[in-house]
Amino acid sequence: MSSTPSFQDHTRLLANAIRVLAMDGVQAANSGHPGLPLGMADVATVLFSKFLKFDAADPQWPDRDRFILSGGHGSMLLYSLLYLNGYPKIVLDDLKGFRKLTSHCAGHPEYGMLPGIETTTGPLGQGLANAVGFAMGERIMAARYGDELVNHKTYVFCGDGDLMEGISHEAITLAGHLKLNKLIVLYDDNHITIDGATSLSDSTDPIARFEAAGWATRRADGHNADDVAAALEWAQNSDKPVMIACRTKIGFGSPKKEGTSKAHGEPLGPDEVLATKKNLGWPSLEPFFVPDEILKEWRSIGTRGKDAHKEWATRFNASAKKAEFEAALKADLPQATIDALNAVKKKASEEKPAVATRKASEMALEAINGSWNLTIGGSADLTPSNNTKTKDLKDITPDDFSGRYIHWGIREHAMAAGLNGLALHGGIVPYAGTFLVFSDYCRHSVRLSALMGIRVLYVFTHDSIGVGEDGPTHQPVEHVASLRAIPGLRVYRPADVVETAEAWASALADKNHPSVFVLSRQNMATFRTEHTEENLTAKGGYVAADAPNAKVTLMATGSEVEVAFKARDLLAAEGIAARVVSMPCWELFEQQSATYRESVLGPGTVKVAIEAGLRFGWDRYIGRDGEFVGMSGFGASGPAKEVYKHFAITAEHAAEAAKSALKQ
Amino acid sequence: MSSTPSFQDHTRLLANAIRVLAMDGVQAANSGHPGLPLGMADVATVLFSKFLKFDAADPQWPDRDRFILSGGHGSMLLYSLLYLNGYPKIVLDDLKGFRKLTSHCAGHPEYGMLPGIETTTGPLGQGLANAVGFAMGERIMAARYGDELVNHKTYVFCGDGDLMEGISHEAITLAGHLKLNKLIVLYDDNHITIDGATSLSDSTDPIARFEAAGWATRRADGHNADDVAAALEWAQNSDKPVMIACRTKIGFGSPKKEGTSKAHGEPLGPDEVLATKKNLGWPSLEPFFVPDEILKEWRSIGTRGKDAHKEWATRFNASAKKAEFEAALKADLPQATIDALNAVKKKASEEKPAVATRKASEMALEAINGSWNLTIGGSADLTPSNNTKTKDLKDITPDDFSGRYIHWGIREHAMAAGLNGLALHGGIVPYAGTFLVFSDYCRHSVRLSALMGIRVLYVFTHDSIGVGEDGPTHQPVEHVASLRAIPGLRVYRPADVVETAEAWASALADKNHPSVFVLSRQNMATFRTEHTEENLTAKGGYVAADAPNAKVTLMATGSEVEVAFKARDLLAAEGIAARVVSMPCWELFEQQSATYRESVLGPGTVKVAIEAGLRFGWDRYIGRDGEFVGMSGFGASGPAKEVYKHFAITAEHAAEAAKSALKQ
Repeated sequence: MSSTPSFQDHTRLLANAIRVLAMDGVQAANSGHPGLPLGMADVATVLFSKFLKFDAADPQWPDRDRFILSGGHGSMLLYSLLYLNGYPKIVLDDLKGFRKLTSHCAGHPEYGMLPGIETTTGPLGQGLANAVGFAMGERIMAARYGDELVNHKTYVFCGDGDLMEGISHEAITLAGHLKLNKLIVLYDDNHITIDGATSLSDSTDPIARFEAAGWATRRADGHNADDVAAALEWAQNSDKPVMIACRTKIGFGSPKKEGTSKAHGEPLGPDEVLATKKNLGWPSLEPFFVPDEILKEWRSIGTRGKDAHKEWATRFNASAKKAEFEAALKADLPQATIDALNAVKKKASEEKPAVATRKASEMALEAINGSWNLTIGGSADLTPSNNTKTKDLKDITPDDFSGRYIHWGIREHAMAAGLNGLALHGGIVPYAGTFLVFSDYCRHSVRLSALMGIRVLYVFTHDSIGVGEDGPTHQPVEHVASLRAIPGLRVYRPADVVETAEAWASALADKNHPSVFVLSRQNMATFRTEHTEENLTAKGGYVAADAPNAKVTLMATGSEVEVAFKARDLLAAEGIAARVVSMPCWELFEQQSATYRESVLGPGTVKVAIEAGLRFGWDRYIGRDGEFVGMSGFGASGPAKEVYKHFAITAEHAAEAAKSALKQ
Repeated sequence: MSSTPSFQDHTRLLANAIRVLAMDGVQAANSGHPGLPLGMADVATVLFSKFLKFDAADPQWPDRDRFILSGGHGSMLLYSLLYLNGYPKIVLDDLKGFRKLTSHCAGHPEYGMLPGIETTTGPLGQGLANAVGFAMGERIMAARYGDELVNHKTYVFCGDGDLMEGISHEAITLAGHLKLNKLIVLYDDNHITIDGATSLSDSTDPIARFEAAGWATRRADGHNADDVAAALEWAQNSDKPVMIACRTKIGFGSPKKEGTSKAHGEPLGPDEVLATKKNLGWPSLEPFFVPDEILKEWRSIGTRGKDAHKEWATRFNASAKKAEFEAALKADLPQATIDALNAVKKKASEEKPAVATRKASEMALEAINGSWNLTIGGSADLTPSNNTKTKDLKDITPDDFSGRYIHWGIREHAMAAGLNGLALHGGIVPYAGTFLVFSDYCRHSVRLSALMGIRVLYVFTHDSIGVGEDGPTHQPVEHVASLRAIPGLRVYRPADVVETAEAWASALADKNHPSVFVLSRQNMATFRTEHTEENLTAKGGYVAADAPNAKVTLMATGSEVEVAFKARDLLAAEGIAARVVSMPCWELFEQQSATYRESVLGPGTVKVAIEAGLRFGWDRYIGRDGEFVGMSGFGASGPAKEVYKHFAITAEHAAEAAKSALKQ
């Protein structure tokens, strides 16, 4: 008898290929998470075989649906799918080498390691919040290039961990507010966390929760292919974002571990792997075995989108917007923007405005946003304080994505993760602001920007005790140090309008690193009064004022460069020659030649660093004999100038410190 | 005509005293947030005059209701209430000096600055999450000492900002799960954020949201005293936590700014202050003027709880548990625990176990938890990985708070803020765990532990590339540096069972600082094989192995102390004498005398630091000529030992580095 198998049976057969590869991969690594791949294999199979718009041969197709595995620990699900569908680069040996240094299959999916990994996931909740950024990116691009070029969905697999994390609240409520109806979340509702049943720690009604945030919701049996397909079919034309709660069994198929937390984060064990394969009726117990006909069918699923892709290419090639669209995806900093920022520098060097660097950043942004329409700005409800909204930026609203400004709400974490999603989506250069002290709230997403090496721009204002009256809760003292500690992140703390424009130019030109702008609330003088087109800030540190026979090098960043200049004058009045060095970006300074660095640091001079933050990290530049003028603990509430005096971050104290260092 | 005024009119009159002080305080400071105090004054007046159990004369009364102003920017509301009710210490000049260095009234309420400030608030969402900890603390203490000694409520004022933050989701769902029915949230539902109307960025239904999390909810007109009182009356006997959405007008009373974002975060302006006073019918336009009879009535409200307080004191003095209760509030580390930890040290020095420090921490915790019942443990769903649950810790459940272990769920941020609440509540010494890499998720609450100077203990395991296969998303490299950057925090990275026990002893003995334990996933040898009762770890750094005529000092922490010992042996084989220094806690090392520090660092030796993290911060100890063996970027996915080799964190490389430094 060779009757056609039911959709359910056929899906199960295809899904079991995922299960086999996943449990074998985890077993071979003797490390990893079989529970999620086994539990969500059926849902994934329905999605890939019936709904997801993709062409495995071209994972960069701009109008592909995005698939985000927010529970990145279930990475073998994704790797199995990439392999089975025939994505480029991945080979069976990668799966066999899962979690080894030699493999492309890292413990968690890492952006850039394999085509088809849309974003790095693992830290819970991040993928879900990235996905909101992806979905926003789609709407923004669609508003620009039309549905005929941009019309895709963003599918997310997420679990209880993702949904318990606070970031999920920020992401979900923002998506609901913006009516991101092409965002479809498939919730792996398996009732299990690492500590045991979810009921140990949670009693939330997920359906009611998403409904409260403006989502369309539905439940499905995650092991019933028809039910999942019906739910996904229903989701296609929603006018709201969609959450489908898929009731699944973690570790599906494992006789001993299915439905228990034992299935989550450790190999099933050799015996249980065999027992599971038998239980699933798999034709062979050989590791990584997938029958030819099943692999062939999966490979044909991988080509499902070929026609749609071709049709899209035809439309794209005929489009008047093709060149613009391609340029947007490339997103090279245009010469017009470089010129506009140079004009800002020139004007500032002539007019010497005394403004806060947050205002200077706004001046730079006027030039940038006016000359390059790929930038999308925003703020976590601090628009008037972050100075992130320039005159030609219209708000993005639920009904109109033709604007260029996002009111992220008081959602720093989802904002940063959303910026990652926007940048990863392509065609967009995203920036957004909050207070520097609240960089803590989004720190992990900043880390992921750095780990992925993507161009995301963070505008962190109110950068020191210069915040003044708001007091220690709002005065960052350790944040510049802690951001400098993140590998790959560029931390700019510019000192006037010229440096701020240079910082923006440098950051925008760097596609492979995220940047942070650390900006003052309070005004400061312009010291770069001689215009040069050379971007000195891009060197990271440079001599701002040299002095013949200098005995002292005064190093500073941001608002304290002005203090350094005043200290220099005080020392000069006493006959002590001092140089001033501005160090706006340590990371870039470290990339200069040793000769250049040494010349900037001033061999034979004593070093005094001045920064309204902690000493932590400065020892690298000032050495054991140098002095540091800055903070040694938390700040205090008072008018900024008084607080500066209170903590002795003054020219007088810096001059004294220099003299004290000279005496040693 | 002298008819008795209605409750509404009378409440309004009392509330206007708050409004006047608040707007005058902000105006005098020329900085601050009048909108919240003006908007919530009526609700606050109903709460304080009718419901809140307190005795202003004794703000430390253990059974007082807690009042938490989560929107700390509205601090003038709290300061006005403290002044009007007659709390100790605060005088009118403090209000007049609001936000000045000379005043006790800082920009945001700071714990320790004034009696009656239960917690430091300002960073949004923190107060709400603290309150969940307070409410848990109440239930835990009630389970121990009975309702007759512990039976109080926790009231929270929070706003849209608090509720948009992700931490609010974690806090609310946890409170709902635990059925914290004495937690009552009064939501300042004013429809305004800094950027404008809340509708700019949010469309969440707050009532449905809280209901989904298992709360009882109700709406009230925040300017109708009877309505607010009815809601609060209804809330008294809830079996769930309660959220009352109080519809208010931000900046209530201000003719020009009421109901607009202009009222939120800047002074009303002198003219508008006068106009508001006139509009409110206030008897005088003089700044800070409160008619005697109104002040008198407020002061009598401040004594409302005197009788209840007295009755409580009677019960307390008669209680057999009085001494135990008092000791719990004092919470001095008992000698029995010190002895038990010394026994752990002794046993380890004899048996020399090769275990991970997370396991060593569990061994210490067995000793601690078995000898001191004030400790309450927990984990953010990583119990089996963090090793935080010892054998005598029973789970705390919604129906039984007699346990000592909290399953926080996947809620790192609310966990840390909740620990702050538990510690602030009193009678509890809280600790909890997550992976070190996810310290980012709760970083701001850790900062607040440090800012408040409270004893909260963070168990952060899986502390380096030693995590292995999980890869860079789960391998902290910058986290130790970034935690060391937080002022006042003690960061311990112990190197064996002995150091781990010492770290716990040191941290528990310090009531004024939070501590972090940075603990390995992987095993390491015991090197402290000679037992001493002296706590060497409490010195921060010490000579682990001296060598006559040493040319090299090898410094390390945690798992790399073992690497340092092996490098010492390699160097010795080549005739190069090297010392080994263990540096488990930099902050404590910095507190030692200069002589001691210098003797440990080894004058005249070249320095090599070894730590499986970034160099950031180490320059302080190794100087410009020293060498660092560690990470210079993100990690990689592979078995831990291979990853260590891949990044050359090996004894061989350390020995080479030492020789290279010697050649310079």
